[in-house]
Amino acid sequence: MKNILPPLLQVSSSGIDYADAIAQNLLTTNNVWMMLATALVFIMHLGFAGVEAGFGQAKNTVNILFKNTVTPIIGILTYGLLGFFLMYPGFDVPGWFGFDTAGWSMFWFSPASADVSTEYADAGYTYWTDFLFQAMFAATAATIVSGAIAERVKLWAYLIFTVIFVGIVYPIIGSWKWGGGALDAMGFYDFAGSTLVHSVGGWGALAGVILVGPRIGKYVNGKTMDKPGSSVPLAVIGVFLLWLGWFGFNGGSVLSADPGLVSFVLVTTSLSACAGGLGGFFAAYFAFKRLDLGMVLNGILAGLVGITAGADVINPIYALLIGFIAGILVVMSALLLDKLKLDDVVGAVSVHLTCGIWGTLAVGIFSTNPDHNFLTQLAGVAICGAAAFFSALAIFFVMKKTIGIRVSKEHEVSGLDSHEHGIRGYTIIYDE
Amino acid sequence: MKNILPPLLQVSSSGIDYADAIAQNLLTTNNVWMMLATALVFIMHLGFAGVEAGFGQAKNTVNILFKNTVTPIIGILTYGLLGFFLMYPGFDVPGWFGFDTAGWSMFWFSPASADVSTEYADAGYTYWTDFLFQAMFAATAATIVSGAIAERVKLWAYLIFTVIFVGIVYPIIGSWKWGGGALDAMGFYDFAGSTLVHSVGGWGALAGVILVGPRIGKYVNGKTMDKPGSSVPLAVIGVFLLWLGWFGFNGGSVLSADPGLVSFVLVTTSLSACAGGLGGFFAAYFAFKRLDLGMVLNGILAGLVGITAGADVINPIYALLIGFIAGILVVMSALLLDKLKLDDVVGAVSVHLTCGIWGTLAVGIFSTNPDHNFLTQLAGVAICGAAAFFSALAIFFVMKKTIGIRVSKEHEVSGLDSHEHGIRGYTIIYDE
Amino acid sequence: MKNILPPLLQVSSSGIDYADAIAQNLLTTNNVWMMLATALVFIMHLGFAGVEAGFGQAKNTVNILFKNTVTPIIGILTYGLLGFFLMYPGFDVPGWFGFDTAGWSMFWFSPASADVSTEYADAGYTYWTDFLFQAMFAATAATIVSGAIAERVKLWAYLIFTVIFVGIVYPIIGSWKWGGGALDAMGFYDFAGSTLVHSVGGWGALAGVILVGPRIGKYVNGKTMDKPGSSVPLAVIGVFLLWLGWFGFNGGSVLSADPGLVSFVLVTTSLSACAGGLGGFFAAYFAFKRLDLGMVLNGILAGLVGITAGADVINPIYALLIGFIAGILVVMSALLLDKLKLDDVVGAVSVHLTCGIWGTLAVGIFSTNPDHNFLTQLAGVAICGAAAFFSALAIFFVMKKTIGIRVSKEHEVSGLDSHEHGIRGYTIIYDE
Repeated sequence: MKNILPPLLQVSSSGIDYADAIAQNLLTTNNVWMMLATALVFIMHLGFAGVEAGFGQAKNTVNILFKNTVTPIIGILTYGLLGFFLMYPGFDVPGWFGFDTAGWSMFWFSPASADVSTEYADAGYTYWTDFLFQAMFAATAATIVSGAIAERVKLWAYLIFTVIFVGIVYPIIGSWKWGGGALDAMGFYDFAGSTLVHSVGGWGALAGVILVGPRIGKYVNGKTMDKPGSSVPLAVIGVFLLWLGWFGFNGGSVLSADPGLVSFVLVTTSLSACAGGLGGFFAAYFAFKRLDLGMVLNGILAGLVGITAGADVINPIYALLIGFIAGILVVMSALLLDKLKLDDVVGAVSVHLTCGIWGTLAVGIFSTNPDHNFLTQLAGVAICGAAAFFSALAIFFVMKKTIGIRVSKEHEVSGLDSHEHGIRGYTIIYDE
Repeated sequence: MKNILPPLLQVSSSGIDYADAIAQNLLTTNNVWMMLATALVFIMHLGFAGVEAGFGQAKNTVNILFKNTVTPIIGILTYGLLGFFLMYPGFDVPGWFGFDTAGWSMFWFSPASADVSTEYADAGYTYWTDFLFQAMFAATAATIVSGAIAERVKLWAYLIFTVIFVGIVYPIIGSWKWGGGALDAMGFYDFAGSTLVHSVGGWGALAGVILVGPRIGKYVNGKTMDKPGSSVPLAVIGVFLLWLGWFGFNGGSVLSADPGLVSFVLVTTSLSACAGGLGGFFAAYFAFKRLDLGMVLNGILAGLVGITAGADVINPIYALLIGFIAGILVVMSALLLDKLKLDDVVGAVSVHLTCGIWGTLAVGIFSTNPDHNFLTQLAGVAICGAAAFFSALAIFFVMKKTIGIRVSKEHEVSGLDSHEHGIRGYTIIYDE
Repeated sequence: MKNILPPLLQVSSSGIDYADAIAQNLLTTNNVWMMLATALVFIMHLGFAGVEAGFGQAKNTVNILFKNTVTPIIGILTYGLLGFFLMYPGFDVPGWFGFDTAGWSMFWFSPASADVSTEYADAGYTYWTDFLFQAMFAATAATIVSGAIAERVKLWAYLIFTVIFVGIVYPIIGSWKWGGGALDAMGFYDFAGSTLVHSVGGWGALAGVILVGPRIGKYVNGKTMDKPGSSVPLAVIGVFLLWLGWFGFNGGSVLSADPGLVSFVLVTTSLSACAGGLGGFFAAYFAFKRLDLGMVLNGILAGLVGITAGADVINPIYALLIGFIAGILVVMSALLLDKLKLDDVVGAVSVHLTCGIWGTLAVGIFSTNPDHNFLTQLAGVAICGAAAFFSALAIFFVMKKTIGIRVSKEHEVSGLDSHEHGIRGYTIIYDE
């Protein structure tokens, strides 16, 4: 156990450096908040697993969970091996590509000490906290794709996609804004990633859905068929954990524990989530004449994605409005995708792409910061969208032409679990 | 990224305001704890969902989850639109009713800035944190009702009840003590809400159970029939999450991160939870001659509810005693309710009302604060109880005479999910 | 609501004790982190419940959950009644046994005040936080045993074992290192308990598995038969919650919020978890030619156990290596145990014992602290191992010869739930 009292308390009376001790205290508090935020974003991966396994069919449960378990593993490792240093390259002039070579060596070979950690990021947090917080974010982008193309994508194809998308595509796009690159210089604003995380993932999902194609029996004679998910409670667990995790996703994006700003962000985030749930509730009631739990759940997520770009610059009253519209958009988007025969198992494109775009543009409309502007927001959306979509399309296309991206018809019909994993998701048998 | 260093560190040498920087640091730390507590109370709503969906029958799983998903949404929104300002009206003289009009405007239309947040509540937390923490509490009262009357209540009736109960009844009663109203002036003590939250919810549940009536087939020829819950693991997840959330519910009710007091509260809370579980274990073993997991789970919750009124003023040894008695009471209460043909699906009345009353009275017996007194506690229990019970009775009664509060016999027997929601909670089918 | 501002802010101008206020702030922040860590370790008990109930057969689900619910209850209570004071006896000379009598009285009969809490553990946290954090650890050792011997052990035998193992065996062994006893004096290093918690539990599990014997039908004609678990999603929930909880298990073992050190620990912990998952993935793919989710999950846990002994003294690159090897070891260990007909339902021996030993020895190989040394680590592993294994063996042996430790053949075959608990884990029936 290390003695962590600031030096001043070990000094008797004179020559005490109060300012240093006070600054150390602040760093410590900020860092606690950021580590908590990191833990909260981590648990979002269980949230995604719950939503996807809950909404997916029972015959594919193990396959879905396999992907969702391996995704954060790949995410954190590739981010450590590559992504972190691509995303924060330390641009000399705001540009489009860079790599922090010095950081890479320090990261992997630094001795186990706190020395590299102090006085980083204006005392907001340590170097290690920064890495882990960002790494938890990174894996999110791939997870979004996972949900959309579940139940028929080849597992190995998904894994290869994830390595490339999380390790290279996501961090390069991220560097344009959060790494101080060209979009940042342009004035584009994306507080916690409606665009940089959610719509980037959403574009990847859309590319995947297009190239993988719909599940067998999803669209029959112009009709959209239900494919009942294995467990609604599991999906509800997932959504609540995602909402919980968003306290860290948005609250941690303040990059310090600044009391007023972080708590303000938590309020706008929660209001938008609630309004999104209501929007989904009413839109689905109007469209389907039933109390559609799935759309309330996706409405909550829509509200969360929608407020993510501007949670720190949107008034409470507009947070409500942004969330409510997001909740309606998610229902309309889902209907449109089905009309286009784009089969998205969990509604990932509608939640993360549609509402990610909406949230980013909403900053241009409602932000209290006069520097934010609709056209710049639109340009950022378009640039990041084009980069993410065509990258994902290219990755899936190359794999489609080589190793294949879709399981055999036989495997898809009888379920991926028995073929690829050898076990079933649920074995609830009595009186054996 | 905002520079959050206190001003002194940006000043060279003289004229530094150490006191201000130190106070800022303390606010920051306190606020981190309170935001964490807020997140923990939030996740209690998933806990309630787990307990209710786990103990409820599979044919009603989606309906139960729908209610539990919408409850925090309604809770947070009505609390923002009404409740917060009813509960903390800023009484001129300690009274029974007030509304903070100025606060309302500031809340909804204040610009996205930290300015309204500083120097609030003796530096315990910010304005926004206060709102969100209290909003998470508010929805709890309605959730308690939800569990008791599940499986036969009309969903719309429940939703209307929730809007009124959370938006008006709960915060007005709360204002009498926590808002500095008449009960506070009288010397009534309720640290974190054994009465103000749990028994208020419990009285609402009792009113609902009486007016809605028992489920078909629950009481047959004087016998109480089992209605097996869909998933015991789900109920266990729920109880553990509630216990976890109680770290924030009680720990956050210190309203600061005061190290000694908060950690003391966590210890009494945990000891009482454990003793409650043991009490339920032994009472059920004595009563039913079996190892009754349901009663261990409800015993844990009973211990948590029981210690909630006095977690900061009860010695560890008495925390153990209060919890153990609560665990026994919850079993006796459940038996009594069944004898009276009051059908409470999850035992909400026994957990929250019976043990909420016990915990509040126990403060009058065991508190280390000589100002606390049994008769004042009893008066507070009676006044809040009468207000909550008759309000809830009135709301349910008016709805019963108008829109109806109970689903049709046919829907109840075949399950609410297929009729109102169009999907099933579980679809575990192989070899399709 | 208590006014928690440090005194200086209530004083006008002169005579202010800055140093005291700064020290109070640091204590407050450290304590918040430690309370968060406590909550995270608490939720690991839900993680264990998920893994065990998920991997166990449906006919025994309630029995498994009963054990996992009661384990933290027994753990916290026996730790308060006995363990805490055995583990931190305040040795005069580093020895093998002691008891803190004065602490015991203070704990149970101290008034509800913060007075005993201040200025404890170099301002790292309060007395109460220390107790609760350590109590959450204590129950872990028994839980590990629970998973290994599930589905055929008598519940009462398990409960008695838990009381003795958590109340006496675990804390005495722990006192040798963490209580400043003989192993600590010898130079043995175990940061967060690869040996003191995980392999102690693992040795208990091994003793139990040997004396209880394999489940009926597990080994038939030299072949190992599958016993499909009830719910893979539940197991996944469990593993993610364990990973989350490990942020507190390892991060809290710094015993303060020291920003550099805690965040470094979180990074090595996460890297090792990821590498462990990969190791399990590849080892199982090589051994079984399938994408084995169970081995990815156990690989993650293996990586976490492996890094636990040295998370604060291992470079990131070696954290990766330690985790990867742990992931491979867990698969090899599971194969070996089956060869020896040692039936471990969840792989607890492989995860906690095998990888606990590996992690402790790895400190002797990779630590950046030159004082750490392989032979001392080996000696510590052997001494703690012998103590834990033979204690557990003795406890199980005495019970086997007296009350019995195994359920009847009939109960085992038809499932423990219907016989001992009277309910089923899952009741998913429609159209009743």
